[in-house]
Amino acid sequence: MIMKVKEPIESEYKLIKANQLLFTYFHFASYEPLTKAMIASKAVCLAYETVEKADKSLPLLIPMSEVAGRMAIQKGANYLEKPLGGRGILLGGVPGVLPAKVLILGGGIVGTQAAWMAAGLGADVTIMDVSLPRMRYLADVMPANVKTMMSNEYNIREMIKTSDLVIGGVLIPGAKAPHLITRDMLKEMKPGTVLVDVAVDQGGCIETCKPTTHENPTFVIDEIVHYCVANMPGAVPYTSTLALTNATLPYAIQLADKGWKKAAQQNADLVPGLNVINGDIVYEAVAQAFGMPYTPVEKYLAD
Amino acid sequence: MIMKVKEPIESEYKLIKANQLLFTYFHFASYEPLTKAMIASKAVCLAYETVEKADKSLPLLIPMSEVAGRMAIQKGANYLEKPLGGRGILLGGVPGVLPAKVLILGGGIVGTQAAWMAAGLGADVTIMDVSLPRMRYLADVMPANVKTMMSNEYNIREMIKTSDLVIGGVLIPGAKAPHLITRDMLKEMKPGTVLVDVAVDQGGCIETCKPTTHENPTFVIDEIVHYCVANMPGAVPYTSTLALTNATLPYAIQLADKGWKKAAQQNADLVPGLNVINGDIVYEAVAQAFGMPYTPVEKYLAD
Amino acid sequence: MIMKVKEPIESEYKLIKANQLLFTYFHFASYEPLTKAMIASKAVCLAYETVEKADKSLPLLIPMSEVAGRMAIQKGANYLEKPLGGRGILLGGVPGVLPAKVLILGGGIVGTQAAWMAAGLGADVTIMDVSLPRMRYLADVMPANVKTMMSNEYNIREMIKTSDLVIGGVLIPGAKAPHLITRDMLKEMKPGTVLVDVAVDQGGCIETCKPTTHENPTFVIDEIVHYCVANMPGAVPYTSTLALTNATLPYAIQLADKGWKKAAQQNADLVPGLNVINGDIVYEAVAQAFGMPYTPVEKYLAD
Amino acid sequence: MIMKVKEPIESEYKLIKANQLLFTYFHFASYEPLTKAMIASKAVCLAYETVEKADKSLPLLIPMSEVAGRMAIQKGANYLEKPLGGRGILLGGVPGVLPAKVLILGGGIVGTQAAWMAAGLGADVTIMDVSLPRMRYLADVMPANVKTMMSNEYNIREMIKTSDLVIGGVLIPGAKAPHLITRDMLKEMKPGTVLVDVAVDQGGCIETCKPTTHENPTFVIDEIVHYCVANMPGAVPYTSTLALTNATLPYAIQLADKGWKKAAQQNADLVPGLNVINGDIVYEAVAQAFGMPYTPVEKYLAD
Amino acid sequence: MIMKVKEPIESEYKLIKANQLLFTYFHFASYEPLTKAMIASKAVCLAYETVEKADKSLPLLIPMSEVAGRMAIQKGANYLEKPLGGRGILLGGVPGVLPAKVLILGGGIVGTQAAWMAAGLGADVTIMDVSLPRMRYLADVMPANVKTMMSNEYNIREMIKTSDLVIGGVLIPGAKAPHLITRDMLKEMKPGTVLVDVAVDQGGCIETCKPTTHENPTFVIDEIVHYCVANMPGAVPYTSTLALTNATLPYAIQLADKGWKKAAQQNADLVPGLNVINGDIVYEAVAQAFGMPYTPVEKYLAD
Amino acid sequence: MIMKVKEPIESEYKLIKANQLLFTYFHFASYEPLTKAMIASKAVCLAYETVEKADKSLPLLIPMSEVAGRMAIQKGANYLEKPLGGRGILLGGVPGVLPAKVLILGGGIVGTQAAWMAAGLGADVTIMDVSLPRMRYLADVMPANVKTMMSNEYNIREMIKTSDLVIGGVLIPGAKAPHLITRDMLKEMKPGTVLVDVAVDQGGCIETCKPTTHENPTFVIDEIVHYCVANMPGAVPYTSTLALTNATLPYAIQLADKGWKKAAQQNADLVPGLNVINGDIVYEAVAQAFGMPYTPVEKYLAD
Repeated sequence: MIMKVKEPIESEYKLIKANQLLFTYFHFASYEPLTKAMIASKAVCLAYETVEKADKSLPLLIPMSEVAGRMAIQKGANYLEKPLGGRGILLGGVPGVLPAKVLILGGGIVGTQAAWMAAGLGADVTIMDVSLPRMRYLADVMPANVKTMMSNEYNIREMIKTSDLVIGGVLIPGAKAPHLITRDMLKEMKPGTVLVDVAVDQGGCIETCKPTTHENPTFVIDEIVHYCVANMPGAVPYTSTLALTNATLPYAIQLADKGWKKAAQQNADLVPGLNVINGDIVYEAVAQAFGMPYTPVEKYLAD
Repeated sequence: MIMKVKEPIESEYKLIKANQLLFTYFHFASYEPLTKAMIASKAVCLAYETVEKADKSLPLLIPMSEVAGRMAIQKGANYLEKPLGGRGILLGGVPGVLPAKVLILGGGIVGTQAAWMAAGLGADVTIMDVSLPRMRYLADVMPANVKTMMSNEYNIREMIKTSDLVIGGVLIPGAKAPHLITRDMLKEMKPGTVLVDVAVDQGGCIETCKPTTHENPTFVIDEIVHYCVANMPGAVPYTSTLALTNATLPYAIQLADKGWKKAAQQNADLVPGLNVINGDIVYEAVAQAFGMPYTPVEKYLAD
Repeated sequence: MIMKVKEPIESEYKLIKANQLLFTYFHFASYEPLTKAMIASKAVCLAYETVEKADKSLPLLIPMSEVAGRMAIQKGANYLEKPLGGRGILLGGVPGVLPAKVLILGGGIVGTQAAWMAAGLGADVTIMDVSLPRMRYLADVMPANVKTMMSNEYNIREMIKTSDLVIGGVLIPGAKAPHLITRDMLKEMKPGTVLVDVAVDQGGCIETCKPTTHENPTFVIDEIVHYCVANMPGAVPYTSTLALTNATLPYAIQLADKGWKKAAQQNADLVPGLNVINGDIVYEAVAQAFGMPYTPVEKYLAD
Repeated sequence: MIMKVKEPIESEYKLIKANQLLFTYFHFASYEPLTKAMIASKAVCLAYETVEKADKSLPLLIPMSEVAGRMAIQKGANYLEKPLGGRGILLGGVPGVLPAKVLILGGGIVGTQAAWMAAGLGADVTIMDVSLPRMRYLADVMPANVKTMMSNEYNIREMIKTSDLVIGGVLIPGAKAPHLITRDMLKEMKPGTVLVDVAVDQGGCIETCKPTTHENPTFVIDEIVHYCVANMPGAVPYTSTLALTNATLPYAIQLADKGWKKAAQQNADLVPGLNVINGDIVYEAVAQAFGMPYTPVEKYLAD
Repeated sequence: MIMKVKEPIESEYKLIKANQLLFTYFHFASYEPLTKAMIASKAVCLAYETVEKADKSLPLLIPMSEVAGRMAIQKGANYLEKPLGGRGILLGGVPGVLPAKVLILGGGIVGTQAAWMAAGLGADVTIMDVSLPRMRYLADVMPANVKTMMSNEYNIREMIKTSDLVIGGVLIPGAKAPHLITRDMLKEMKPGTVLVDVAVDQGGCIETCKPTTHENPTFVIDEIVHYCVANMPGAVPYTSTLALTNATLPYAIQLADKGWKKAAQQNADLVPGLNVINGDIVYEAVAQAFGMPYTPVEKYLAD
Repeated sequence: MIMKVKEPIESEYKLIKANQLLFTYFHFASYEPLTKAMIASKAVCLAYETVEKADKSLPLLIPMSEVAGRMAIQKGANYLEKPLGGRGILLGGVPGVLPAKVLILGGGIVGTQAAWMAAGLGADVTIMDVSLPRMRYLADVMPANVKTMMSNEYNIREMIKTSDLVIGGVLIPGAKAPHLITRDMLKEMKPGTVLVDVAVDQGGCIETCKPTTHENPTFVIDEIVHYCVANMPGAVPYTSTLALTNATLPYAIQLADKGWKKAAQQNADLVPGLNVINGDIVYEAVAQAFGMPYTPVEKYLAD
C-alpha cells in the first residue's frame, strides 16, 4: 500500500527549480508526465517508495502498510453490511451466533495488522502465507482466534467457500503480486462476500480488483463486493501523517544537515531512493518503464 | 437499541384478523396509527419490547443491543475517516503513533459490547457508569486497554475534551435516558469528534442526536459528527435475525404449543408483553401515551 | 458425571451397623441390592449425590464434573490418534496446518471446563447451550478461540459435519438428558470423529453411548469412536480426592460436631441428602424406583 | 523428533532404479542394510533429515518436532492417570486443587510447543534452557503460567523433586543429546512421575529412556513411567502429513522443475541433504558410521 | 481495611452542634472519647463503616479494601528488598530466574485485588479461600499465574514453607478474623519472608501482626518482616478519595436532598449506618462495647 | 544499569597478585584509584561491563538491566505515595477511578521490563523509543495497556504534562545518554510526579538526576521526586546474583578450563572485556579517560 498525492497539476511543476531536493512519494514508473516534468526541472528527486534498507525492507512504505492493513478490516466490516452490498453479517457475531470468517492472504505487514484488527473484533481469522518461519512467529504472538495455513491454490479454493471477508495483503516489492484469487473463483464464494485488496495500486493479488477511490470505493462482480481504494491511508491523515513522519524525519534531518549528496554517501538507505538527478534518470526501473536513457547513480555520488 | 420494521402500510393492517396472535416489535407508544389499527383488528398483540423477566431484564431487546453495541464501534471507526467528516484518526493507531480515545457512556449491554470492539481495535477506551458493582465486573473481564470511570458531569466534561469517539449507550427501559452530553458540551470537543448514540430512538443520551437512517446516517453540528441511525442492527440482518430468533424461539414454541393465554399463565415473562387484546389496551403506558382507556391484563388471563 | 465406588460386596454390608452414619455416594436408584442392604442395616445413609443447595446446585457433584470436563478433552485428544481409531488429527494443529474442531454440547460445568482445556490446546472450539445468559458469561471470560452457538437440532446437525471431537456435557439433574446426537447423525460425521459422553452413566446425551470402563474405554459405531467411561475422575484420584474433600469436609465437620440430625436441622443442604434412615426410605425417587414405601424425611428431623 | 517410515523390506529395495531421485527420510547412519541397498541401487538419495538452511536450522525436521512437542503433553497428561501407572494427577487441577508441575528440558521447538500445550491445560510449567536470549523471547510470548529457568544440574535436581511430568526436548542436531536426567535421579522423583523423551531416537536426554512403540509405549523404572515412542507424529498422520508437506513441497517443486543437480546448485539448502549418489556416499557422517569410503558431494555438483 | 482520620482533638469536638449530620468514618467501638463527645454533641452520626446493603456487603468499605489490596503487593514487593529486611527477591524474577511465590489468604476484595497485582508483576501466586464458588469465579477471570487452593491449616502450613510474601486478606465484617497464621508458624517460613496483614486494624488474620504506621511501617519477629500499617489507603489519597467519593456521593446527595431521616426511611442501606442520634446510641454493638444504654434506631425513624 | 560493589578499600588491593585473573565489574573509567591499583598489581582484569557479543550487545549488563527495569516500577509506585513525596496516586487505580500514567523513555531492556511491570499493575503506559522496528515488536508482544510513541522532544514535552511516573531507561553503551528530560521541563510536570532514572550512574537521561543510595534514595526538585539509586539490583541480591551468574558462568567455566588467554582467543566476546593486563591498559577508553598510555590487547593475545 502506498500513499499517493493527488495527480500534480502542470502549473505546479513550474514551481520546482533546478537543484532543489524533492523528498516525497513519486511512483514515476506509473505516471510519465510527472517523470518528464521532473527531468525537465533538473531537480533532485528522492523517492520515498524506493528508499531501502540493507535487509531489503522499504522503511517509508511500512507505515502506510500498517495503516492500510488495519483499515482493511474496518472497511471490510463496514461493507459486509447489507445496505452496502455485503452479506449482512457482523464480524464478531454475538453470544449464541457464530462470528464471520475472515481470510487474510499474506502474513506480512498488511496481513498481520489486518489479523490483529479482525481478531480484536472477534472474527474467526485465518492467515495464509508461504513462509513457515513467519507463520511460526505469528502463532507465537497472535490471539487464539487467528489460525495460520499454508498458502496454496488448493487451500485458497477451500477457504474462500466459507469466508465472509477476504483481505488481499500480498505485495512483492518491485514486482506484480500474483493473482491468488482469480475471476473464476468468485463463483465459489458466498454472495455478499467482501474482498479488500490492499495492494491494488501495484496490481493487487485479486484478479478482479481495479483501483477505486474514497468517493466510489466499491464495485460488485458476480455478487462479490470489491473494495479497492488505492490510497486507503489518505482517509486517516492524522494517523498516517504521524506514522509517515516518524519514518521520514530521521532521513529528512540528515538531508537537511548534510545535503543530499553527503547524506546518501553516508547512509546507504538513501541511494536507491534517488530517481532523477539533474535531468538524468538514475533509477533503472524508471528508465526501462519509459525506454529512456539510464544514468547510474554512482556518477552523482562520487566525490 | 431496538429493531424496527418499516412503517406498516394501511392495506397491510387489513390482513390482520380478530383473535390472531401477533408476536413482534410494535413500539405502540411511538406510533398512534399502528395502535389504532391493532385495536380495530381485535388481534392479540404481544410486543417483543415489553416481554420482561423477573429481574427486570428485557430478553428480546438484549440481542439487538448486543449487535448495536458492537456495530457502534465499526461505524464510529468509519466516520472518524476524514472524507466522512471525522478527525482522520485510526482507532488503534500504529506502532509509534498513539491510538484514538474512545469514551463509552454506560456499561450495560451496549456499552460493554462497544468496549470489547474498541479495545479489540487497539483504542484507548474508558467506560463510564454509575454502578460500582458493574464496573468491578468489567474490570475483572475486560482487556487491559479498557478503563472504568464513575459517570458524573464533571468527569464527562473532562473526558470529552480529549475523546475522538463517544458512544452513547445509556438506556433506562421505559424512560427517557438523561442527556449526558448537552448541546453546549460540543464546543469543548475536538473538531471531527464522532458521536454515536445507540439509544437514539428512545430519546438518546446525547442532546443533539436525532434519529437518522442507513441512507443518511450522519449530520454535523459544531464540527462534531453525529451518527444516530435508529435501527443499526438492520444493517446486519444475517447476524441480527439469528440473534433475535435465539431469544424469541423458546417463547414462540410455548405460544404455538399452548396458545397465548395458557403460555402467559405459565410463563410470567410474557404477561407484560401483552399490549392489545381484543380491542383493549392492556399495557398501561400505551393507554397513557394516547389518553385511551386501559384494561388490566388480568381480565384476560383469569381462567 | 459422578464418581462411583466399586460395587459393594455383600460381606462388606455386614460391617455396617444400626444408627451408623454413612456419608458417601450411594446412587441407590441404580442398584437395588445396595438399597436393600442399607435398609436392613438400619444405618443413616446421607448420599453425596443428592445434597443440594438452595439454588438447586449439587455441591458434591460439581467437583467431579470439573474433573471429568477437563479430562474429556485429554481423552478426546488421545483417541483422535490414528492407532487408537481416531482421525489422526492433532487438536491444536501446528503453524501452517489448521487445528481440529471441537464441539461441546452444554455450557455447564462439564462443558465449560472442557472448553478451557480444548482452547488451551489450540483447538477451534464451539460451545452449544440453550441459555443465552450463560453464553454471554462464557463469551466474557473464555479465550478467543471459543465460540458460542445456540443449541438446537439444526445447528447440531450442521456442526457435527465438520467436527473432529464432540463432547457431550449435558446433564439434567435427576432426569435423563435428551439425546442431542442420535444414531442416524453418526453417518453425517467424518470417519474417525471421536465422541466423549461425560454424562453417560445418567443416560448421556449421545444415543449410541453406553458406559465403558477404564480397561475398555472405547467402542466404534459407523467409524465413529465412542469414549464413555462412566467414572472418568477415578483415573486421577490424587486430584479427584482433594477436589471432593474440599467440598465434603465442611459438611463432614458439621455432621461430626453436631450429629446428623442437628446438622440437617441447621443446614438445609443436607436434608435432601438423607436417603435411608433407620430402615425407611426417606428420598422419594428411590422409593419410587423400587416401588417401596416412602417415609417423608420430616418424620426424622422434628425434635 | 523425526518421523520414520516402517523398516523397508528387501524386496522393496529392488523397485529402486539407478539415477532415480529419492527424497524422503533415510537416517542411514542408524540402519546399515538400507545404506547398502541404496548404494547398490545407484539412486540419488536426498535425505529430509540433513537438508539444512544457512542458519543451521533443519527445515524438514522442524514440522515433526512441532507435532511431537505438542503431543508430548497430550501423552504425558494421559499417562499421569493412575490406571496407566501415573500419579493420578490432573494436569490443570481444578479450582481449589493445585495443578500439576511440568518441567520441560529445552526451550527449542519441542520444548516451546510442549510448553504452550501444558500451559493451555493449566499446569504450572517451567522451561529450562541454557540460552538466555531464547528464554527472554519465551518470557515475552508465553502465557503467565510458564516460567523460565537456567538449565544446570543443580536446578534440574531441585526441580525434579516436585515435578509430576518431565518432558525431554533437548536435541543437538547431528550429535547425541546430553543425559540431563540420569538413572540415579529417578530416586529423587515422586513415584508415578511421568517422563516423556521426545528425542529418544537420537539418544534422548534421559538416560533411562529407550525407544518404544505406539503399541507398547511405556515402561516403568523405579516407579517412574517412561513414555519414549520413537515416532510420535506417526499417530496423527492427518496433521503430520500436512505439516511435513508444507515444508517439503517447495523443495520438491524445485527438484521436479530443474532436476536434482541444478536444484542443488541453485538452492544451497539441498546440498547437505545429498547422502548417496550413484553408489557413492557423499555425506561424511554416514561414511564414518560404517567405515565406508566418502566422496565429497562437490564431485557431483560441478558442471 | 478501613481508612481512619487522625484522632480528633477535643477542641474540634466543640465545633459540632446539635442536630448536625455527620457522615464519615467513626469506628466508635474502638475509641470511647469520640463516642462520648458525639453523645454530648447531640449530633446525628451516620458512620460509613456500618452502612450496609441488603446482601450484607459494606459499600463504603469496599473501595478502601480495593486500594489496600492493590497496595499490599506494592508494599510487599518493596519490603522484600534486602536493605528493608526482606529476602532480596524480585517478585517477578527475570528470564532464567524463577519468580517469588506469593500466598494470599482470602479471595475476597482485598485478596482478589492483591492477586491481580502480584500476577501482573509476574509472581507465582496462590489464593486460598474456603468458598469453592468464589474460587471457581477467580479461576475464570484471573491470569494463568494465579492458582486457587482450599484454605485449611494443613494447606497453609505447607504453603508458607516456600512462600516469599504472604498477604492476609481475611476479614469477617463485625467479627475478629481468625488467626490463620499463628506465632509458631513463623519458624517454618524462610528468613526474610514478608507478611502484610491488610485487616490488621480489625484484629488481623496473622497472630503476630500489630498495627503500625506509615512512619514506622514494619517490625521483625523471628526474621519475618511484618508490614501492618493500619491505614494503607491513606498513602494514596488522590486515588482513595476519588474511590471513596464514588461510593459515598450517591448517599450524600440523598441525605442533602431529603434530610437524614427521610433518606434513611427510603434507602435501607443507611439505617445500620446510624450510630448516635440526639445523644442516644442507636447501634447496638457500640452500646455493648462501652456498657452504655442502647436505643433502637426505629425510635427515630418512625414518622 | 550496572551493579557496583562498594568502593574497594586500599588494603584490599594488596591482596591481589600479579598474573591473577580478576573477572568482575570494574568501571575503571569512573574511578582512577582502582585503575592505578590494578595497574600496580600486574593482575589481569577482565571487566564484566565491556564483555561484548558480535551483535554489540553486552551480555553481562543485560541481567542487571532486567532487574533494574522491573524494580524501577516497584520503586516508582512506592514513591508515588503521599508520605514519600509523590502525588498519592495508586498506579492501577481501582474500578471507577482512572489509573496513573506511566511514561517510559526507551524501549530497550530496561524500558521493556519496566513496561511489563507497569502494565501488570494496571497503569496506562506509554513507551517512547526512536526505533520503529523495536516499537513494532513491542506492539506485538506487550499487553493492551502499553502504547508506543516515537520519541522526540515535542512528544516528550506533551506527555510529561499528564504523566505521574517517568522512567528513564535510555542508555547508549559507552556514551553519555542524552538528556531527554531537561531541568526546565520539571515545571511542566504535575507536582508529586516521580522520576526514576535507571541509567543514572552513566549520566542518566534526566538532567536533574544525580546518583543516590538505598539509604537516601530520593530528592525533590521543583516538587518533582527524583529516585536515582545507582545500584538498584543490589537491593534484591537473591534474584540479581542468580541472574548474573546465569550470564557469567559459561564464561567463567571457559576461563577456568582454558586460562584467560586461550579462552579469549577462542571466544571473541571476552576480548573487549580485557581492560588491564600486566600493568598495561589494554582498553582504549580507559586509557583516554586518564590520559594514560594504551597498549593494544592484541599484544597479549598473539601466541
